[in-house]
Parts: sequence; C-alpha cells; structure tokens
Amino acid sequence: MRVIIRSVRRSTLPLVLAIVVSLACTASLVAQSPLQPVSIVITGGIVVTMDANYQVLWPGAVAIDARKIVAVDTPENIARRYRGAQVIQAGGHVVMPGLINTHTHAAMVMYRGLADDLALMDWLQKYIFPAEAKTVSPELVRVGTRLAALEMIESGTTLFTDMYYFEEEVGRVARAAGLRGVLGETVIGFPVADAKTPAEALARAERFIQEFKNDPLIIPAVAPHAMYTNDTATLTAARDLARKYGVPLLTHVAETQDEITTSHDKYRMSPVAYLESIGFWGPTTLAAHFVHVSDEDLAILRKRGAGLSHNPESNMKLASGAAPVSKALKAGINVGLGTDGAASNNDLDMFEAMRQAAFLHKLIESDPTAVPARTALEMATIGGARALGMADRIGSLEPGKLADVIVVSMQSARQTPLYNPMSHLVYVTRGDDVRTTIVNGRILMRNRRVLTLNAPAVIADAVALARKVKAAVETAAQSSAPR
Amino acid sequence: MRVIIRSVRRSTLPLVLAIVVSLACTASLVAQSPLQPVSIVITGGIVVTMDANYQVLWPGAVAIDARKIVAVDTPENIARRYRGAQVIQAGGHVVMPGLINTHTHAAMVMYRGLADDLALMDWLQKYIFPAEAKTVSPELVRVGTRLAALEMIESGTTLFTDMYYFEEEVGRVARAAGLRGVLGETVIGFPVADAKTPAEALARAERFIQEFKNDPLIIPAVAPHAMYTNDTATLTAARDLARKYGVPLLTHVAETQDEITTSHDKYRMSPVAYLESIGFWGPTTLAAHFVHVSDEDLAILRKRGAGLSHNPESNMKLASGAAPVSKALKAGINVGLGTDGAASNNDLDMFEAMRQAAFLHKLIESDPTAVPARTALEMATIGGARALGMADRIGSLEPGKLADVIVVSMQSARQTPLYNPMSHLVYVTRGDDVRTTIVNGRILMRNRRVLTLNAPAVIADAVALARKVKAAVETAAQSSAPR
Repeated sequence: MRVIIRSVRRSTLPLVLAIVVSLACTASLVAQSPLQPVSIVITGGIVVTMDANYQVLWPGAVAIDARKIVAVDTPENIARRYRGAQVIQAGGHVVMPGLINTHTHAAMVMYRGLADDLALMDWLQKYIFPAEAKTVSPELVRVGTRLAALEMIESGTTLFTDMYYFEEEVGRVARAAGLRGVLGETVIGFPVADAKTPAEALARAERFIQEFKNDPLIIPAVAPHAMYTNDTATLTAARDLARKYGVPLLTHVAETQDEITTSHDKYRMSPVAYLESIGFWGPTTLAAHFVHVSDEDLAILRKRGAGLSHNPESNMKLASGAAPVSKALKAGINVGLGTDGAASNNDLDMFEAMRQAAFLHKLIESDPTAVPARTALEMATIGGARALGMADRIGSLEPGKLADVIVVSMQSARQTPLYNPMSHLVYVTRGDDVRTTIVNGRILMRNRRVLTLNAPAVIADAVALARKVKAAVETAAQSSAPR
Repeated sequence: MRVIIRSVRRSTLPLVLAIVVSLACTASLVAQSPLQPVSIVITGGIVVTMDANYQVLWPGAVAIDARKIVAVDTPENIARRYRGAQVIQAGGHVVMPGLINTHTHAAMVMYRGLADDLALMDWLQKYIFPAEAKTVSPELVRVGTRLAALEMIESGTTLFTDMYYFEEEVGRVARAAGLRGVLGETVIGFPVADAKTPAEALARAERFIQEFKNDPLIIPAVAPHAMYTNDTATLTAARDLARKYGVPLLTHVAETQDEITTSHDKYRMSPVAYLESIGFWGPTTLAAHFVHVSDEDLAILRKRGAGLSHNPESNMKLASGAAPVSKALKAGINVGLGTDGAASNNDLDMFEAMRQAAFLHKLIESDPTAVPARTALEMATIGGARALGMADRIGSLEPGKLADVIVVSMQSARQTPLYNPMSHLVYVTRGDDVRTTIVNGRILMRNRRVLTLNAPAVIADAVALARKVKAAVETAAQSSAPR
C-alpha cells in the first residue's frame, strides 16, 4: 500500500482513494464471513464419526481439504467457516469413515464361484491350486485386481489389505484406482507363479517394498503365507525384511484345526506360540483368521500389540470355525474385519462382513448382546485401522485424519424407517447403498459412478479372462478324475 | 362344414368354394407360422427352473399366458411357437421362480432397528411388547405391510407367509400389491390389539378366512402363536377351525431352549410331541423355527407331512440356535426358508436368507459341503412350496404352474465373472439385483419400478408413523427405567 501512495500524483488521488476504500470494504466483508476455501464439503447427512466417543451428528457435515479432513461439525457451523469447491448434499445418507478390509486376496475375484460347497482339500487341490498354477500371471493379477478395485470402490472399501502373487501389479492397479492398500508380496515354501523358491519370493518382496515405500497410498508389506507353508528360516527372513524397512508383516494363523495339529506335531507348540518363539509378533504384525486359538495365544497377541483380522464369512463358508472375537476384544486386542478372497466368500462387501460378524458371534456365544452393531462397525473402521497400526491417520472422521470417507444411502424401503443409523449400517445396508467413495481426499465414486476405472472395460476384460480360467480348471478336473 | 354344404344351392357354389379355399389358405398360414399369442415372453436369460432335475437353460426362455407358465424352452423354440404381447429381454440375467418366504410378520418392518443386540426378554419386554401394545392398529398393519410389500417385490419375493394382528389389513394390502400370501390371523392366550381373548381371536380368524377364502392370491390360514402362549383348548380350537375350512395352520415351534423347558415342565413332553398328542400336525401345518428338536420330533414332522420354516438370520440374531436343517432334509421333511419379522433380522431379503442358511450349516456341522447353493435355492423356492403344500402350483418354472417369476441381474462387478448361476444366486446376489417381479402372470415390478405401489408415498407414510412408534417406545422405556 505504501508503494502505491508514494508514487501517486495529485491528479490520481481520487482513483487511489477509490482503490483504498474498495480494499477496505473487501477486508470488512472477509471479516464478516471468513469462509475458508476447502476442496469438499459434505453436508446434511448423518455423520457417524467412529471417534473415541462414537459421536453421531444428525445432521452433520464434514469439510475436507486436499488429502485431509479439516472439520466435522453441524451443517451450520461448517457453512459458517468453510466454502467447498465441491459440495455434496448428503440428506438421507450416512457419512462415515471408509471401510477397511484387513484381509483379502483381491485378484482371486477371478476364481469367485468357480468351486463352492466342497471339502477344503477338494476345493484347494482340485480347483484353486490347479487354477492358480495354470492361470496366475501378471495379467490375471492386473485384470482381477481391477475388478476387485471396482467392487471395493462400489461397496465403500477405502483400504484393502492384500496378500498375493505379482503384488506389484496389485500396487499399480490400486494406485491408479485411487485405493489405499496395505499390500504384501506372498512368500511361500513351494514353487508358485511368481517365485520358484522362498529366496526368490523374498527378493521379489524386497523389490516390491522398494517400488512402493514412498507411495502416498500404498503401504508395502511382507506376507509369509503361513507357518505351515514356510520353514523357520523363511519366516525369520520375512520377519527381518519387514523390520529392515519398517513395514507390516501379514500372515494366516490358526485358520483350521489341521494347522494346529501340524504345528503341535512339528514344534510341540501352537502356531501362535511357535511364531512367538521366533520373534515374529510385533505391533505391525497382522494375523488373519485366528480361529483355533487358546487364551495363551490371545495373551501373546495382546502382549505384542499385534493385530487380528477376523473373516467371518470365509470361516463359515469353508467351515473353518469361529474366531473368539468377543474374548479378543475384551483382552484389548486390536481386531479388524476382512472378507478374505472372493473364492471363499464370495464377495468383497464389508457390509456383509459386518452383518455376518454380528450374527455369528451371537449364535456361537448364545448371547444376543454379543458383537452389537457398534462393535461390528468399529471392527470395520477404526478397529481395522488399529489392527494395521494406522489409527492415527485413518478409521474415523476427525480433523487432521486422512479423508477416507463414504456416503451411504439410507433411503430404500429396506432401510425404512430409520431409528438407529448404526443398526441400519450393520443389519440392513449393503455395499450397493454406498453412493460416494472418497480416498485421500479424492472422489473415486460419485453417485454410483466410478471415476477412476472404466467399469464396462474392467468387467469385459474379466469376463474374457474367465473363459481361460474355466478351460484350465476343466482340464485339471478331467485329469484328476478317477480312471 | 357338412351343414354348410347340405344347405347350399347350385348358384351359391362359387361362394362356398371361395370360403373353402380361404379356410384352407388360413390353415396353411397357421401351419407355416403357428405363433400362439401369449401375454409375456421372457427370453435370452439363464433360466434356473428348479424343476425335479434342477434343469438350467443357458440361454433359455419362458412363455407366460394370463396366470400361468405355458412353456420353458430354448429361446429359439419359444420364438418358433409363441408371440408375447410383452417381451422381456433377459440377457445377462437369471430367470427363476419367485422366492417364497415361509415365515414373516410383515407389518413388523415398522419396528425394524428399533431395538437390537439385546437379550431376548429385554428385547421383548422393554421394546417389542410395549411398542406393539401402544402402536398396533389397523393403520400400523396397513402402512407396515405396504412397506413390507414394497421391499418384498423389490427383492423378488412373490409369496409371503404371515402371522400377525388385523390380518385382514395384510390381506387387503397383499391383494392390492399383487403379492401371493399365506396369511394367518394370530391367536394368542393374552389380550392383544385386535382381540381381548383367544375366543375373540378365533372368531376374528374365522371372519378372516371367510373374507379371503375365494381370493386368487390369498390363502387364509389360522396362526396360533405358539404352544407356550396358548392353552390346549385354544390350540385344539385353532386346529379344528383350520380343518373346517381346509386351510393351513401356522405356528412357532421350538424356537428357544426356554420353550422346551416350559413344555417339559407343563406337559412332560417336547413342544412337538405335545402338539402331536393333540392332533395338531398335518400336511398343511407349518412349523416356524424348529431349532431345539430331537430326532423323535423330526420323525413326528416327517410322519405327518408337516412343513418346516427355517429362519437362519432371526435364529442367529436372537441367539436362538441352529435348526437341524441337514437332518430334516435327509429325513425327507419339506423345508422352506423364512426371514421372520424385520424386527429380528432386520430385512425381508430372501437372498440374504439363502446365503445365511448356506453359511450357518457349514459352520455348525463343520462341513463345507453342508447346505450347498442348490439346497439353499431349493429351500427358497420349490422347498418352500412343498412346505406350504403348494408344490403343484408354484415353486418352479414348469408349464402349467402359476407364473410367479423373477428376473435377476448378474451383471455387477460383484457378480463377475459368472461360472455357476446357482452359486452366484446364493453367495453374491442381493434382493436389489432383482429387476422384474411377476406374480400370477402380473408384472409387479419392471426394471426396478414397482407398478402396484406408489413407492415414495409408501415410504413417506411409514416414516411419519415411525415417529409415533418411537415416541411410544421412549415413554415405555422411561417408565420401565430403574428409579
């Protein structure tokens, strides 16, 4: 301002005065309505925050700027403080944290419904292993993960935890689709499509970590398949690799009774105790399934701060059993929910996982108060974030957290009337009710239209590839038929 | 023809010849393209017939005329023989029998999500009974059943079996909405909204039967609530009323362990044996739940040809237990599926009931081959028809049966790829995937648009009434709070 006044001549004074008055007026207007510009405001919905007090704002609003949530408040207070470049009217909808899938094998959507209702060994040996041996390739992982990403975005999952082969393909697809991922390259003790030996798999895992370690969306991980499919040397090496890079360690643990028997035969210990004996557990170790476990096993998980991924649908469909979820929660273990791969579920809908968790434990414990709706919802959001060691960044709608947010319709006949949003989210809502999915502040789906994937092309590619999968399995089934 | 020729004179012979030639030409045209006009042809879909051979036509077509299915065949054969006034192109869709819900309380959608995750007695005594005592009225039953009818049509249910109060309202709504119903006026041993005494309830039940006995869609029934809520005189009178009119007898049996204890204390017999001792069972008696039963109880049901309605979701959510479905099926009992009322489910989606049945029994029996997809599908269609004694008329797509047909999309990401239609129907399909619902040859929903109900008005009425329900329950909860 001083610069301008110094340079003016008398004749220009009226103009200068006019400018000064104009600037002053603008300043005064700003003082009266100091609207902070933000990228997105979602307003008028029922905001289910999943914060420490399980606060529900009905109605509420959320302001998002760039990658983060900047405010969660009443619609009036948000309107008083923020102006969204985009405004999403969410009346009749729930606004909530994106769902966190703590265990899946995304590309296995390519084997969805290929074989069901079979004994586990028939399922694995006659169908899944032959199908995988003949068909797992970078292309299958790419095409399958794209299909899975489409399904996950459409059903409100904003983070998926994955273990598979050619995991770099999973990472690249997730990045392009805009999904957050905790992705682990599988390490397994027999030759598989992307590695002939565990050493080769470990080398792949390290390259994978290096490719993704600075990605804003992907957290690379190491995924030794299980204690019964890897020897001690490999499990130890996997553990060391994870420690070297400070990345999570993902594994299947205590899924079936067979695994317990194998572990006792081989090590005279439970799988959990054996893994403890080799220093496997830590705050970023995540144990999927955890069905056949003792109180001592739970105590080990608790002591090490490791996470548990509960997969009720897969555990029921494969008749594996029921994880002691209520006990684990009481013990203070961080429990998340997972769908497992679509070959054993058969979908990636986390709403179904919540519903199944609530139903299953009521039945198993003969207690209708077991795993109430709020607990199921917690496992699918902030609980999953805790299990992954990410609760400081995601899992709830709170200022400062990354903007992983979904908007879910509550307007169908099936959801009418609405007395209790948490009950409805768990007992009558489906993935298809999700209207808008936001990850890291980016809108991936708006009004059911996925913006980051070409849905018809993704589906067409999967359909074309499925023909090859089917042919491969039919050949395998014929060659294994009795002669 | 002889009459015409005998009466002709020579001069009229050319005219007669012309008529004869004309008739011959018409006959020849008919021989070349003998297209029979029918009301609806559905073509190009995957036709899952649920006939005795579980035949699947992929692709297939169905011809419907007036109320009945006239043909099920390949699209080519149907095109060669029938011309539909309406043609539904069903490429990428499954065409299958409408779903049969063998147990619900439709109007209870008004209490959906009002109270969950509570011990059964808390749920009943603090919420459901007070809510019902203060709010059950003809208006609530009418508004609630309309909402339920909307949800059922939208999710592919074509027949619902209902037990509630003011059942004439249920019947009138079902008739207007075009749904098939087996509807029973409730008879219960304490004063309820529509009857102060069992005698009054029985009189109401008789009037109800008289109102609906000649209805083309409604089969009236008598619904004594349960053996523990009615005395022997009332149960016997209910049985006699059903026999007098040749209508079904619906009841809840062996739902909880408490009921078994009560029955043994009072009659020194199981509930099933007690009902046998009073001649209650017959081929049109339908037992809902049937959870806590012995082999002897199953033998009684089998011997009497009575039906079993399995309600897996309600039994899990209320922690009632798991019905011995595999055993019942092996024993040759007719087993159908039900959702139960939405207060204990919380929806009326029969696809969820199928999925839950398949999951539950695998877990309970530790056998992944238990209740395979085909069995779940059978229970929801022809099995339900058998349990209701209606398998000669509905439950499968076969010529001569009544045209209760649904068209279900298989095109979502969640349903891709499609290897096995039966697997997909049970494991990844939801009610929302149903595109078209036909009952008795009438299209009730086409391309997700319900034609027989004004959906926005139905939802608005339910929302308005729900405010009164909520207020009533809050008053009740306050008055029962500790002081």
